[in-house]
Amino acid sequence: MSKASVKDILIEMKNLSELMVDLAYSALLFNSRDAAEEVKKLENKVNRLNYEIKKESLLAARSVEDAEELTALLEVGQAAENIADAAKDIAELVLKGIKPHPVFKMVMEESDEIIMRVTIEEGSELIGKSLGEILLGTRTGMRIIAIRRGESWIYGPDRNTVLAEEDTLIAKGNEAGAELLRKLAKNEMSLDEL
Amino acid sequence: MSKASVKDILIEMKNLSELMVDLAYSALLFNSRDAAEEVKKLENKVNRLNYEIKKESLLAARSVEDAEELTALLEVGQAAENIADAAKDIAELVLKGIKPHPVFKMVMEESDEIIMRVTIEEGSELIGKSLGEILLGTRTGMRIIAIRRGESWIYGPDRNTVLAEEDTLIAKGNEAGAELLRKLAKNEMSLDEL
Repeated sequence: MSKASVKDILIEMKNLSELMVDLAYSALLFNSRDAAEEVKKLENKVNRLNYEIKKESLLAARSVEDAEELTALLEVGQAAENIADAAKDIAELVLKGIKPHPVFKMVMEESDEIIMRVTIEEGSELIGKSLGEILLGTRTGMRIIAIRRGESWIYGPDRNTVLAEEDTLIAKGNEAGAELLRKLAKNEMSLDEL
Repeated sequence: MSKASVKDILIEMKNLSELMVDLAYSALLFNSRDAAEEVKKLENKVNRLNYEIKKESLLAARSVEDAEELTALLEVGQAAENIADAAKDIAELVLKGIKPHPVFKMVMEESDEIIMRVTIEEGSELIGKSLGEILLGTRTGMRIIAIRRGESWIYGPDRNTVLAEEDTLIAKGNEAGAELLRKLAKNEMSLDEL
């Protein structure tokens, strides 16, 4: 039985659904059609993965125990798809041309976890470094959701993603972490000071 | 019009829905009925808040523009409720007595963001400190989802929550941050070394 592929599909569904929620809120907050389009694209992908995981599970079940165990995994997959759907609903507001309501901006600023945007300026120590190398997430608590580089975007960057001057980072975390990231990007603080 | 209450309700819905997803995954991972029960309780709360926000919005709309703006906020509220529902579906697996599948454990361990559990041991510098005071989230990237203290739980602790010896922390973040938190809790590292 192909537990490996069920596992890999579920990891991807979980990662994508979480990224999509953050990306959808960001799209609405910064009125970004690009980010909203990406959420829609990812939602299609999550749908396909949910279909795959169901198919794999049917092929994998050999006994009643197998079937019971696999049913629980399918439920988790379905929950991830439902979360992805909720993200898509938010993204569609942006695609419909609805501007971010001032109250929504306040909601995002006063949530437990906030979403911020900052551009990397000349001289910043972040330039040329990978996210993993500087342990950005660990040392500032900020998770990079997306990077805008010129006309293109990197969604859900990983530890190997190398930062460049003029990259615009969209990140999630708390207020204190956002302040650190802002200073690092604006060359008002060095990595040693973290 | 009561924009303030719409705002406050939406902040709470967003915070709760995000906490619920983390708590639901934790409940399944650690087979915790208590955490699963809490997710169900919070889901009722989110439902009530969604009702409140609809009522407030109907009372607040004075013009077509108002109505359009408020509709978008209601959609965000509905998305938060849908996310909360997905979390409840996961929690119900635990309440049905379904044990965490070994594959699920692997999924959680290999996700972009992992969930970990650690108990604060004698001598740890975390003891007697508030989460805000030590900037735990900012300096380790770990977000505390829940704290088990003796027979009771603290769900979604805030910056004023003071840690105590023998607290069991359930936290979310990346692998490197989890390692830091583990060492701090087990008195293998001091806060100065962060």
